[in-house]
Parts: sequence; C-alpha cells; structure tokens
Amino acid sequence: MNWPVVAILVSILAFGVAAWLYTWVKSQPSSNPEVARIGLLIKKGANTFLGREYKILAIFVAIVSVLIVLFLPQPIWKGSASANIMMAISYIVGSALSALAGKIGIAVATIANVKSAEAATNSMNKSFMSGFRGGSVMGMAVVGSSLIGVTAVLMLTGDATSVLGFSFGASSLALFAKAGGGVFTKTADISADLVGKVELGIPEDDPRNPAVIADNVGDNVGDVAGMGADLFDSNVAAMSAALVLAVALDGGTGINTNMILCYTSLGLLSSIIGVLSGRIGKSGNPSSALNKCTYITTILFAILTAIATPVFGFNWRYWGATIVGLFVGTVIGLTSDYFTNDAKKPVQHVASASKSGPAFTILSGFSYGLYSVLPALLGIGISAMASFYICDGIDPASKTDALFGIAMSAIGMLSIVGMIISNDAYGPIVDNARGLVEMGNLGDEALRITDELDSAGNTVKAITKGFAVSAAGLTVIALLGAFMTEANAALVDLGKQIIEGFDVMNPLVFFGMIVGVAIPAIFSAMLIMGVDRNAQRMVKEIHRQFDEIPGLKEGKEGVVPEYDRCIDIATTGALKELLAAGIVIILSTLAVGFIGGVRAIGGFITGNIMSGLLLALLMGNAGGTWDNAKKYVEAGNEGGKGSVAHRAAVVGDTVGDPFKDTAGPSINTQITVVTLVASLASGLFASFSILG
Amino acid sequence: MNWPVVAILVSILAFGVAAWLYTWVKSQPSSNPEVARIGLLIKKGANTFLGREYKILAIFVAIVSVLIVLFLPQPIWKGSASANIMMAISYIVGSALSALAGKIGIAVATIANVKSAEAATNSMNKSFMSGFRGGSVMGMAVVGSSLIGVTAVLMLTGDATSVLGFSFGASSLALFAKAGGGVFTKTADISADLVGKVELGIPEDDPRNPAVIADNVGDNVGDVAGMGADLFDSNVAAMSAALVLAVALDGGTGINTNMILCYTSLGLLSSIIGVLSGRIGKSGNPSSALNKCTYITTILFAILTAIATPVFGFNWRYWGATIVGLFVGTVIGLTSDYFTNDAKKPVQHVASASKSGPAFTILSGFSYGLYSVLPALLGIGISAMASFYICDGIDPASKTDALFGIAMSAIGMLSIVGMIISNDAYGPIVDNARGLVEMGNLGDEALRITDELDSAGNTVKAITKGFAVSAAGLTVIALLGAFMTEANAALVDLGKQIIEGFDVMNPLVFFGMIVGVAIPAIFSAMLIMGVDRNAQRMVKEIHRQFDEIPGLKEGKEGVVPEYDRCIDIATTGALKELLAAGIVIILSTLAVGFIGGVRAIGGFITGNIMSGLLLALLMGNAGGTWDNAKKYVEAGNEGGKGSVAHRAAVVGDTVGDPFKDTAGPSINTQITVVTLVASLASGLFASFSILG
Repeated sequence: MNWPVVAILVSILAFGVAAWLYTWVKSQPSSNPEVARIGLLIKKGANTFLGREYKILAIFVAIVSVLIVLFLPQPIWKGSASANIMMAISYIVGSALSALAGKIGIAVATIANVKSAEAATNSMNKSFMSGFRGGSVMGMAVVGSSLIGVTAVLMLTGDATSVLGFSFGASSLALFAKAGGGVFTKTADISADLVGKVELGIPEDDPRNPAVIADNVGDNVGDVAGMGADLFDSNVAAMSAALVLAVALDGGTGINTNMILCYTSLGLLSSIIGVLSGRIGKSGNPSSALNKCTYITTILFAILTAIATPVFGFNWRYWGATIVGLFVGTVIGLTSDYFTNDAKKPVQHVASASKSGPAFTILSGFSYGLYSVLPALLGIGISAMASFYICDGIDPASKTDALFGIAMSAIGMLSIVGMIISNDAYGPIVDNARGLVEMGNLGDEALRITDELDSAGNTVKAITKGFAVSAAGLTVIALLGAFMTEANAALVDLGKQIIEGFDVMNPLVFFGMIVGVAIPAIFSAMLIMGVDRNAQRMVKEIHRQFDEIPGLKEGKEGVVPEYDRCIDIATTGALKELLAAGIVIILSTLAVGFIGGVRAIGGFITGNIMSGLLLALLMGNAGGTWDNAKKYVEAGNEGGKGSVAHRAAVVGDTVGDPFKDTAGPSINTQITVVTLVASLASGLFASFSILG
Repeated sequence: MNWPVVAILVSILAFGVAAWLYTWVKSQPSSNPEVARIGLLIKKGANTFLGREYKILAIFVAIVSVLIVLFLPQPIWKGSASANIMMAISYIVGSALSALAGKIGIAVATIANVKSAEAATNSMNKSFMSGFRGGSVMGMAVVGSSLIGVTAVLMLTGDATSVLGFSFGASSLALFAKAGGGVFTKTADISADLVGKVELGIPEDDPRNPAVIADNVGDNVGDVAGMGADLFDSNVAAMSAALVLAVALDGGTGINTNMILCYTSLGLLSSIIGVLSGRIGKSGNPSSALNKCTYITTILFAILTAIATPVFGFNWRYWGATIVGLFVGTVIGLTSDYFTNDAKKPVQHVASASKSGPAFTILSGFSYGLYSVLPALLGIGISAMASFYICDGIDPASKTDALFGIAMSAIGMLSIVGMIISNDAYGPIVDNARGLVEMGNLGDEALRITDELDSAGNTVKAITKGFAVSAAGLTVIALLGAFMTEANAALVDLGKQIIEGFDVMNPLVFFGMIVGVAIPAIFSAMLIMGVDRNAQRMVKEIHRQFDEIPGLKEGKEGVVPEYDRCIDIATTGALKELLAAGIVIILSTLAVGFIGGVRAIGGFITGNIMSGLLLALLMGNAGGTWDNAKKYVEAGNEGGKGSVAHRAAVVGDTVGDPFKDTAGPSINTQITVVTLVASLASGLFASFSILG
C-alpha cells in the first residue's frame, strides 16, 4: 500500500464530507429577519477579529520565517541553505493551514448558529443537527488539513525534521489563536454579565447590552477557532513526534512511518462515520446523541486498526500502545465529567457551600480542581509507562522503540480527534443559537430546546478539555523523546558526546526544570491579568453607552447600542495580550537553551510539562465546576436565582471564566510550543550555550 | 576542636538565653484582671488543643516506632536489630524534641501576649520587647534543641542514617502540628470573621463573639507551635541531608561533619546576638527593628564563618556555597515582601480591582500569586546550580562533593533560622496582644500601638514564609542526594547495580514524577476542604449561641458566650483532618516505592518538590496579597471600610486564609516528610518492588 497516497485520499474524503455538511447546513431554512440581522452582526464581528488577528500573525510568521531561514535547523552559514528554506516553507504551510481551518470553522459556525436557532422553533432534532453538523465541518476540516499537511510535507521533503517545522507553524498559530481568542471571549463574557446580569438584572442575551454581540462573537473566536487551532496543533504535534521517532527506527523500511499514516487515516475514517451517524434518537437526549457518536468512533477505530495491523504486517505491540492511549483518553474524559457534572457531588457541594458566601464557593471549587488533577495525571503516567513497557525491546538495537510506543499512545489518544472537535464546536454554535432565540424573540419552546442543547454542549466541553490536556501531555512526552533524538543528531555532527537522558541530579537539568515549572504560571498570570484589565475597560464602555445613549436602558424601540465599540475593545486588548504572552514563552525557552544547553532544555521541558499539566487541569476543572454550580443554582437549587448562593455562585463562575476558557486551555498549546521551539533549536543549543 | 561538644555548649547557651528571656517576660508587670482572665482562657484553650493533639500523635509515634523496629532501615529478620532499635529511638527523640519546642513556644507566647498588651498602655518599646523576647524564647528553644538533638544522635549512634530517623520524627510531628494547627487557626479565624465582622458588623476581637477565644488560641497553635515545628523540621532536615553526604565524603577524617557543626553553631551564636540586640530605636519603627536584628545576624554569620574556615581548615568552596544560600534566602525573602507589601503595586492593584467586585479581587490576587513563583524558583535554581558548580571537583574521586555543596547552601539559608523564628513568633504574640487590648478595653493609644506592632508582624511573616519555602526546597534537593546515597548503599548490599541518577526519560522515574506532582495538590485540597467543612460547623455553633443565649448579642453585662464549644469544634475537626492528610502522604509514598522501586521514588520526590514549591509559593503569596489588600482598604483606601471594595477584599482575605496559613505552609513539611520516608525506606524499596 502506498500509505501517503491513502492518507491524502482520506483527507480529501474528509474535505468532501465537510463540503457536503456545509452545503447541508446552508440549505436549512431561515426566514426571521431579526435573527438574520443579529447573526450578521456576529459574523461580521468574528471576521473583523479574525482579520486583524491574522494580519498581526502574518507579520509574526514572516519574521519567524526569516529567522528560520537564517538559523534553523542550523545557521545558514554552517548548514545547507536548502534545508533552512524547506523548514521555513513547512513552517509557513503549517501556520497557513491552521489559520485556514480556523477560518472555515468560523465561516460555518456563524451560519449554523442562525440555522440552529430557527430550527428550534420547529424541532429539537433539527436544531441539534444544524449545530452538530456545523461543528462537524470544523472537525473534518481540522483533521483533514492536518493529515494532508503532514503527509505532504513528509513526501515532499522526505525529512521528519521538516514536519517539526510544520508542527511549529501550527503551534505558534494555535498559541495566539487560543490565547487571543480566550482573552477576547472572556473579556466580553465577564463584562456583559457584570453590567447586564449583576448590576442591571437584565437577561443574559438582552440586545440592549452593548457587549452582547461581542460575547457571541467571543464564543466563535475563542471556542470554535481557538479550540480548533489547539487540537489541530496537538494532532500535528503527536504525528510529528511519532514520525521523528519512526524514521529513526525504520532504518529505511518505512514500516513504522506507514503505520502512523495508516492509523491516523483509519482514525479520520472512523470519525467521518461517527459524525455521519449523529442524530437525536428516540430518547430525545442530545448529550447521549453526542456520546453515542464518540463511542461509535472509538470502537470503529479499535476494530479497523486491529484488522489492519496483521494485514499490513505492523507490530501488534505498537497497536497495543495505541489502544492504551485511546482507552486512557476516554477514561480521563469521564473523570473530568465527574468533577463538572451537576448530578455529581463536586458541583452540588460547591453550590451548597455558596450559601455561606463567595469565599466558600471559591475555596470548595478550587479544592475540587486540585483533587481533579490526580486521575488525569495518574492516567497519563500509566499510559506512558504501559506503552513504554509494551514496546520496550521490539527493536533490541535501539532505545527509541519504547519512546515510539509512547508516541503511538498519543496517536491513539488523538485518533478520534475529528469526532472530539465536532462535539466541541457544536457547543458554541448552540450557545450562539440560544442567544439568537432570545434576541430574536423566537418563543419559550425554542428557548427551552436551545437551553437543553446548550447544556449538553457544556457537558461535552468539559470532557473534551480533559481529553485535550491529556493528549497534549502525552504528546509532549513523545516530543521530549523527539527532542533528544534531534539534539543527539546535532551533537554527533559536532563531534560531541551524545546525551543518554536527563538526570534530575544534573545541575543543568535541575535548573532548567525549576525554571520550566515557573513558565506556565507566568503565562497563565499574563492571560488572566489580560482578561482582568480588558474587562475593566469594557465595563467602562458599557457604562458610558448606558449613560450617554438616550433610551438604551429603557429599551426604547429603535435604539441600539454601539456593539462595534465593545468588539473593538475586546479585539485590541486580546491582540495586545496574546503577543506579549507568546513572546515571553518563546524567549524564555531560547534564554534557557543558550544559557544551559540541551540538558537544561530537557529539564525545562519536563518542568514545563509537570506544572503545565497541573495548572491546566486545576484551572480547567475548577472553572467547569464553578460554571455548572452556578447553573445548578439557577435551576432552582439552594435558593435559586437571586439568592445568596446565587450571588456567590456568580462570583465563582466569573473567576472560573478566564481559568477554564483562557489560561487553562492555552497552557496545552504553550507546552507544545516550548517543546517544538526547543526541538527545532536543538542544533543551536548543542553548538552554543554558556554553561552546557 | 571537639565540634560536637562545641555544638552542645552553644545549644546549652541558647537554652540559657531562652530561660533568661522567659524570666524577663514573666517579670513584666501585669495588673488588669480582665486581660488576665482572657489571657488565661487563651492559655487554657491552647493547652487543651496541644494536649489532645499530642495524645493522638503519641499513639501515631508509638505505631510508627514499632514499624521502624520491624522494618527500618532493614527488616529486622534481615538486618541488625540494634540498628532498627537505634533508629526507632532517634525517631522518638526527634518527635519528642519537636513537641517540646512547640510546648515551650506556647507556654511563653501565652504569657507574652498578656504582658505585651499591658505594656502597650505604657510605651511602644516595652510592648514590642515583650512580644519580641517572647518570640525569641521560641527561636532559641527550637534551634537549640535541633542542634543538640542532631549532635547527640550523631555522637551516640555514630551513624548519619540514624540522624535521618531523628529528622523523620521531627518532620512527622511538624506535618501534624502545621496541618492541624493550620486547620484549627483558620477554622476559628474564618468563622469569627464571617459571623462577627460580615454578618453582625461587630469588631474583630469583640468578646461577645463565641469564636473570639478560639481565634486567639489559633494564632498560638497555628503560628507559634506550627511554624516552630515547621522550621525545627527544615533545620533538622537540612543538617541530616548534609551529614549523610558529609559522612560519605569524609572518609573517616570527619572534616566536613565538623564543618557542619561549626557553621550551625556559629549560626546559632549569631542568632543569639541578633536576638539580644532587638529594640525599637529612635525611629520608633517596629518593622525596621525586626529587620535590623536579621541583618545583624546575617552579617555576623558571614563574618564568623569566614574567620572559622581558614582557622579550622575547612574548604573555602563549601563556605562559598553556604554564603550563596544565605544570600539567596535573603533575596527571596525580599521578593515575597514585594508581593505582599501594601506600599507596592500588587497589593494596591488588588485593592483597586476589588471595586469591581470579589471576582476581580480573586483573579488579580491569584495572578500575582502566579507571578510570585518566578523569583523564588529562579533563586532556588540559581542557588542549587551555583553551589553545585562551586563545589564540583573538590573531591575528584567522588560525585558527592557537588551535592554536598547544595546541602551546605541549604545550611547557609537556614543558618539564621533562630532569628527567623524569633521574628515569626513575634507576630502571633502581638496579634494576640491586640486582641487582649480590645477585649480588655485598654484604650485607644494602646490599640494604636498594638495595631502598629501587629502590622510589622504581618510584613515580617510574609518574608519568613518565602524564606521557609525556599529553605525547604533547597533542603529537599540535598535530601534527594542523601536518598540516592542511601538507596545505593542498599543496592550494593543486595548485590544490585547502583543508580547513577534519575533520568526523566526512564518510564519509572517519569511515572513517579507525574504522580509526585499530584500529591501536594491532593494534600492542599484535603486541608482547604477541612477548613471549609470545619468552619461551616463552627458558624452553625456561633449562630446557635447568639440565638439561644439571652442577652449575648446585645452585650448584656455578665453574659459570656460558651467559648469552649468553639475551641472544641476547632480541635476535633483539626485532629480529624490532619490525620487523614498525613496518612495519605505517607501511604502514597510507600505505594509508589513498592510499585516502582527507587527510580520511581526519585521521580516522585522530584515531582513533589516541583509542584510543592509551585503551590506553596502561589498560595502563600496570593494569600498574603489578599490579606494586605483588605488591610489597605480598611486603612481608608479605595472607599475604605464598608465600601464595595471592602466587601470584595474581605472575600479575598477569607479565600487567602487557608491558602496562606493552612495549605501553603504545610506543603513545606509535606515535601520533607515524603523525602524522609523515601530515604528511610530506600532499603525496602531496593529489595522489594513490583516493577523496579
């Protein structure tokens, strides 16, 4: 079998499915002019943000490309110019494809929201289908373009290191998309709630609120485009790490490289079937409809790869590692669900603690966040250890086999990513639809339907996040192996001694590690502070509009707020914050590398993974618990809306907003970016560093 | 020079100074019957808690002693019975001395508070002197007993491993004292504030509040006994780690062992002189009086050791490592001050953000907490790396020299610990004095004086905490070296291959590390939840008393609340929580060791240090920032008392309470306990583990 061609064909099939789903969504009826008008405002806002973001990122990408041509993988005056140019091209393609996937996601999401809203006046299943199929376009586009991109770069350059360049392009874009989108969405969300719900007591999506459109735009740019870029990045990074190790193992046979392409193609195929099977059955329960698709995909993938492995002569033990990853990913997803599901103890306890005031909401939710790190960390640890032992000794001449097992475990965890993204992008679409139903006055029944669809989206989102963090964790461990392989290649070229590993008792490793621990903390703080600063600015603007625009507060006919001003504040602020945070990350990696060399970087990556996973899980899950505790109270428990518990739960939710939607999920990408920068610059660190 | 004898003589001198200071404090005038009555209630409450705590801990110590006799350092049927008995005795002595130091601290603190309160009616300097000299009794007692204990165990057993047993005794007691005291103090503090200040609007130390005595008892058992046990533990652990490595290096000459005893003796001597020089000068500023003592001690120590080093033929490079630790410890202390000082940006920004509500108080304070980890982690990293390189190659035949350098750096950081404890115990004494002034109606001038003394105590406390965390971090790195030495000795005995280090690419090390990262999170969550649960119970009890005791709320003459009931709730709850948290820590260490062997434990300790330092610094500093932001608002800024900002700042302070006084500082001890358990059981892990 010519696996690269198969991978490209499956990717094209995914694009075909995406195009068909897009057409289907577009063909759904829409007639209400008010919904259409507001839908257009959201679309315009999202495109404005994306346009401005991409303009800045284009400059960034251009500068980095020049630096790559000059310095990576080797300074141009030392290595070959063509290798550097190839790397720069891979980098540009990686960022371009990531941007394209985001653009496609936004394009369909801002149509599907309108369709889903209107369909809600008709039936739940129709409304669900618009949301789910809209999300699936994003899922198919992301996985299709990552698979086709990786395969193409590999075929054209014949070199796995260039795939790392491609992956770095995807990651640096994801870092900005996730961080920028995250700051945007929470700025708008918090400000809209603070003035609307808390101060004035008007409903969530009241059209009088000047921040309401920005809030809906935020769902799209943060949750659709941002999350898509994030999982695009994880998926590409997992494939790159596996490919670098596979090439080292293959010894020219290409067998393991082929296995990667085969498994990822089968994963995409399973996701396509999973996506197409999505509909609400007789139960009428949207959550179980989404979960059913995930289970179908998971089981299909396991069966298909179990058939392919003997047929094409792949090694069963690598298959075992892949399935371990798949299984552990699912289990971790389910434990996140425990901490954020309102039928379980954590959410209910936080809601009940809220009766004693906001301090207890924060303390109990934060504690559950701390507890929640254990199952996920244990799962990642077991998965890494199990796949290591399963694969250790397959190739007795090499130490790389066991590391490759870990990489395959990451591939397994990410095999169903097409399905995961589809589920995840469904969330903000139906959330938007709910807003449109309210703003367009489509009636109580439609509101009830979209409420239920929205709530299913929230549950699924919590699971996806646990999944995304774990996949990133496992991927980065594999990348650490890839980094060592790259660094050793450079060390051999320089005639230096290769490194066997990263001993924590080595002072350079230890120093790198302890600095690496601090990085996710600093990065998170910058983003949270960014949201904080930005929200203060937007709150001021909302107050100004209510004060200065006559008739706005009273809801006088024909008076509309200046939505654009709020979108502008969110955009400008987000772009400022994302650049600063991203640059700090990249520069600190370079600083540690040039000071302490490859050993310090090995420690740095390790410390970064450890504290990154800890903080990402803590913030993601605590945020989810607070969010759902608030919803649980609003559903009439512990005193319901307007009670002491409710006011406290709102505080928890506001604290949780930037935790779970800005800082937490951005850390995934931050970890990957650090590791990729380190891998790409390993040649530089090997030849020049002050202490190394 | 016979250094063990010198060390014992200096320790006895410290006890003499402590006795003199105790007599001095006791001889201060006290006449007010109301102050005496309340002082007695506090004393009784503290002794009740300590009595019940020590009773439970005695059972725990007895059980562990039996286990030690049976299993440590080797199962009794394999090794020698006398070694095991010696270890058990060292363990019992370590815990007994730690308990004694706590007992002495409480005894003097509950007299000094009354004296300081009454002296405040007279002059600030007199009031200060009672507080400071009371605290110094604790400082002298802790350092004297740790030095005499370590020296005696070393002399009698001639074996550094037994010193580890002594250290484990000190640590396990410290774990319980810190965690139990922390839960007690914050249960009382939060409940008293919640009902008193927030619900009823009565002042902080109003005698009508049933929790007010428990709150004052909490200051003593949490901050005096708990912090004392914590620093006793760090100090002993640093000495043990250094001694284990020194014995390996000495080759029978005893030179490095002597150096440790010499330096620690000189450190204690410097602290004695520092303590005796303490008084408020013409400036009338208590903060600068405290800082002046610290600077005197620091400079004296540097000079004395610089003289001793050539005179007694110690190695200058080890001296260099010691001074690096001393210097970095001071710098880290100053950076903590930046984050918690109300003249600096963080506190003021949090206060200003509070105007937008409690969510912004939490978000901004949490962000500063995240930022604050960088300087401390960088300091620890630089200190470890610098001392490693300074000492690497002193003994070309050994790899231990560089690790010993790190241990000496920890010794340097802890050399001034006598002074640090004195400053630290000063805080709760004057805090208590302030309460007594208010409850005893000693007048506005006395209240102003004790307010100022209290505020100086808070500033110093923040610095001490940064110092304590960093010292624990550096100590545990040295202990990791000691662990490897111990494990290798066991491996050699078993005829197995020794380990050269802990490579993060090794699956067992990695697995241990990722589980180790989760432990401080779980431990913190248990303690925070413990405070949360306990405070809910106490709030109920306070409400009951206000409802059921006629005339209490109105402050009718002669009506007193049932203070004992609140003390009882805090005690029972604290004891329950501390046992659970402590046992989880010890069992998880054993589980990882018996599953993954010494390599997994190496990783486990490393992961534990990394996440422990991160969380301890985050929680300690965020808590300090919130506390001082509230005080800053109460001083009339951002709207002052009763404003929106004030209500929000109170929420921040309540969240910060268990962060900074329960979970944060307990993590220091938790890290040490894990490492010591691992070191002591290294022989067991080496001979039996499932995967190792």
